Amino acid sequence: MAQNYEITREFLQKLQGLIELRDEKSCLVMIADLHPADIAEIIDILSMEEVLFLFLLLDSEIAADALVELEEDDRERLLKALPSDVIAKEYLDNMDSDDAADVLAELDVERQEEVLSKMEDMEQAGDIVALMNYGENTAGGIMAKEYIAVHEDWTVDECIKEIRRQVEEVEEVYFVYVIDRNEVLQGVLSLKTLLISPAKRNAINLCEKDIISVKTDLDDEDVGKIMQKYDMVALPVVDSLGRLVGRITIDDVVDVIRDEADKDYQLISGISEDVEPDDSLIVQTRARLPWLVIGLVGGILGASVLRFFEPELNLNKALILFLPLIAAMAGNVGVQSSSIIVQGLANNGLYTNSIGRRIFKELGVSLVNGLILSLLLLAFNLLSGEDYLVTATVSIALFSVIIFASVFGTLVPLVLNHYKIDPALATGPFITTTNDIMGLMIYLFLAKLLFGIFGIM
Amino acid sequence: MAQNYEITREFLQKLQGLIELRDEKSCLVMIADLHPADIAEIIDILSMEEVLFLFLLLDSEIAADALVELEEDDRERLLKALPSDVIAKEYLDNMDSDDAADVLAELDVERQEEVLSKMEDMEQAGDIVALMNYGENTAGGIMAKEYIAVHEDWTVDECIKEIRRQVEEVEEVYFVYVIDRNEVLQGVLSLKTLLISPAKRNAINLCEKDIISVKTDLDDEDVGKIMQKYDMVALPVVDSLGRLVGRITIDDVVDVIRDEADKDYQLISGISEDVEPDDSLIVQTRARLPWLVIGLVGGILGASVLRFFEPELNLNKALILFLPLIAAMAGNVGVQSSSIIVQGLANNGLYTNSIGRRIFKELGVSLVNGLILSLLLLAFNLLSGEDYLVTATVSIALFSVIIFASVFGTLVPLVLNHYKIDPALATGPFITTTNDIMGLMIYLFLAKLLFGIFGIM
Repeated sequence: MAQNYEITREFLQKLQGLIELRDEKSCLVMIADLHPADIAEIIDILSMEEVLFLFLLLDSEIAADALVELEEDDRERLLKALPSDVIAKEYLDNMDSDDAADVLAELDVERQEEVLSKMEDMEQAGDIVALMNYGENTAGGIMAKEYIAVHEDWTVDECIKEIRRQVEEVEEVYFVYVIDRNEVLQGVLSLKTLLISPAKRNAINLCEKDIISVKTDLDDEDVGKIMQKYDMVALPVVDSLGRLVGRITIDDVVDVIRDEADKDYQLISGISEDVEPDDSLIVQTRARLPWLVIGLVGGILGASVLRFFEPELNLNKALILFLPLIAAMAGNVGVQSSSIIVQGLANNGLYTNSIGRRIFKELGVSLVNGLILSLLLLAFNLLSGEDYLVTATVSIALFSVIIFASVFGTLVPLVLNHYKIDPALATGPFITTTNDIMGLMIYLFLAKLLFGIFGIM
Repeated sequence: MAQNYEITREFLQKLQGLIELRDEKSCLVMIADLHPADIAEIIDILSMEEVLFLFLLLDSEIAADALVELEEDDRERLLKALPSDVIAKEYLDNMDSDDAADVLAELDVERQEEVLSKMEDMEQAGDIVALMNYGENTAGGIMAKEYIAVHEDWTVDECIKEIRRQVEEVEEVYFVYVIDRNEVLQGVLSLKTLLISPAKRNAINLCEKDIISVKTDLDDEDVGKIMQKYDMVALPVVDSLGRLVGRITIDDVVDVIRDEADKDYQLISGISEDVEPDDSLIVQTRARLPWLVIGLVGGILGASVLRFFEPELNLNKALILFLPLIAAMAGNVGVQSSSIIVQGLANNGLYTNSIGRRIFKELGVSLVNGLILSLLLLAFNLLSGEDYLVTATVSIALFSVIIFASVFGTLVPLVLNHYKIDPALATGPFITTTNDIMGLMIYLFLAKLLFGIFGIM
């Protein structure tokens, strides 16, 4: 019985040795029993030359599955190296329609047409073309055409006959969809119900009619939320007339959920594309440098702010010591506030309160946090014998900066979301940098003010 | 046909009005057709008094499902308000065993025993007690006892009879598990196969024997990775003798995946528990203040570093202008490096390279980024007529700080992971603050050095 498989260094070295010897038979023995997902993991590590040798050895159905499981950049390189008719006849014909459409979409438009023209399964080719018309991030873009539809007046026996007829094409079946003569979705019938019901009963009388379906143009993130909320393993997709056009399975949605979380994580950590630690230097630099440049520009602007307030800094040098503290706290508080909103919207986007109430709530939290933190700083500075006016200035500034950064950090993602822009952008470097600079300005402006009133200016 | 339901403000107001009038019949009409997940969403918004009224109206099966779907803190409050025998007989008896065990685990130990003693379904009570023995974050802790097992020599007809017998208890069935006389798992049989196979064939001849299963003590995150990797909707769980003891369904794992991503996101944004924007002031403060205090302590340490280097800062005031820039860039680069490693480990933890190779790779990326960014800063400072020595010092410092923060940011999560500590801790405030302070130290130490050699000190 195969357990989930972990690839060891020894296994890899042995396989690479066999590939070098061009020992087809022994290579095949080594990988014959592996799951396509494990083969994909091995391919991720091998060189292109090694991959090509191995890939062309594989049974085309396993190769097709492994191709789907590959990382996108590995797949692109591999597809470039493979002849169009191999891609068409060996792989695309053997994939689920949604996976085939995704793979094809990664090719140049010219190459797409060439590959499509070489496909043998014309129904599959038609399905792929139909799927490619939907937006990438919509229900239509992630649905598959592999589903089993039965007519409402069919008997259990007739339904089973239909399943048997399609058994080759539709690998995983848990439900069949009941449609009327216009192909409008009427209900869902589980295989369990089919299995335990009398052979002569009609589909329409057995099926669950109170069902959840989505339209083709629904955003894929919303599809994810719906399937998560209602714990569904398959979701039927209908067109604007309610006709069944596809189904989405939970494994595709798990990828959407994972990708969505990854995207938010990348934004907050200042990375602009999906980067793996193994990616090339160019990919990594492209993903990271732009955000650092934004940070650098922010730092240069911060330097200008300091230059502007140079007289105040010169008059009381102790103010200088707290510049990094104030800037860092502004950034920290802002990111906290934004990320709470971003997560709230991601997990629970269906019901949202008014922007005003959110800001009010955040004001309360930041008042408490601000008060405690500035009192702590006050105590520290008093104990360490810092000048009274500096001590007061720094604590008042910290308090003000926390209030500002909290409200700003809450407001920005809510406003972005209101205008249908990804709220997670608010956690990125633009806003953090803005918070840093605003923090410095508030601090030094307050210093100017307080020193003007009580002090020596 | 019910679509996914969005709760409107009007709906809520009408419902709250009816609850105030104690109009049981009209309330029930309003919520009768809703999915339990939607009822849970409504309950999230209502007051405790309103919730109690509504909850006791519901059919116990729907109420049990809604209870499972509630946010944890809402459920805890509701359970406190409900009598033990209602929880036992109305709700726990009607839940899947894994959900029942989770709900029960939220009660005090004394209350747990009281509730258990009042349950009527003794088999269910036994299952719950068995499940509660497994660690919360293990395969055993998330598996359910609701599965259908068939003996290897049973015929298709006998298997179907078994499904019919258990139809009430096991709601969602996509597979049945084939076991031998010692209850050792032998294979998996899909309902599709049962449906299309001759009635007299034996289970063992029809089932897939090359299957993936996990042991009860496997970490739930690893369960998530396996189900994601192999696109599974249900995963059998076995004990150390290979005997079938439970199954995990994909909807439970989706929650684990989501929770895991949320946890990493919270760490990087400086929040210490699951916080929703609607949570109370106390919950929010408790989640946010500790991390801000760490930041504050870091800022105070930073102030000490500046105090130590006061002579250098006094001698060349232009150095002051770039303090926030250097500190911020150190933090930014460090978080980037750490989060790339954290994401790499989360998505692809099964195969990891050596620490040395990772650091070497990161050195390359940081050399390129550091070179470009310090040249940009150099150009800016030269164009704006800054002092040459300051210009050189700031750029060399930026370059050094980027190299340091990259390597440190890469090393820490790898080391944490090596010692089985959550690598995402590296993205939290400890490391960011350390990077800030180290950045300032490198900057001012370099200034001291360079000014000593070329300058005026």
